[in-house]
Amino acid sequence: MILEAFVLNVKAGMGSQFEEAMREAAKYIASTPGYSSHEIHRCLETPDQYIFLARWETLESHTQGFRGSEAYQEWKRLTHHFYDPFPTVLHYEQVLSYK
Amino acid sequence: MILEAFVLNVKAGMGSQFEEAMREAAKYIASTPGYSSHEIHRCLETPDQYIFLARWETLESHTQGFRGSEAYQEWKRLTHHFYDPFPTVLHYEQVLSYK
Repeated sequence: MILEAFVLNVKAGMGSQFEEAMREAAKYIASTPGYSSHEIHRCLETPDQYIFLARWETLESHTQGFRGSEAYQEWKRLTHHFYDPFPTVLHYEQVLSYK
Repeated sequence: MILEAFVLNVKAGMGSQFEEAMREAAKYIASTPGYSSHEIHRCLETPDQYIFLARWETLESHTQGFRGSEAYQEWKRLTHHFYDPFPTVLHYEQVLSYK
């Protein structure tokens, strides 16, 4: 399982619209083969900052499968204009999980 | 539920020792009232970079409960000397969870 993670800054005052767009866009990312789940969290200390976390079966499910899909064009249309600046998206593999 | 999240950079070449220290340190954070779970993931694109995610019942469970505890002194002793620079720790509340 691969974790896609990035911190993103939304244009000032557009948080509510961004959250609504993300709810609408969820079905597009979720339609991708190899998609497992995703979460969005709003920062308590920094207004208009969020963290995005998605779980993929493989790195390529995201970098090739989703980014090469028609669904990604819809995702971009709905979400990318909120970002300022455009975020750096990175991928991670789990080394510890504890509860 | 509150998400504590930060990206951290470990001193060059110390990734394996850091991961071992985190496995040893896990019981200290997990002993805190209000702790739910935590995960550590290693970055695929950037050597020596990790992301740390912990779930807490409330913000204060972390900022006051854990940071004010004796367990935190053990956590610091085991883990803080790996960080370069020291990370900015932020907290988030969930706005979307989808699968």
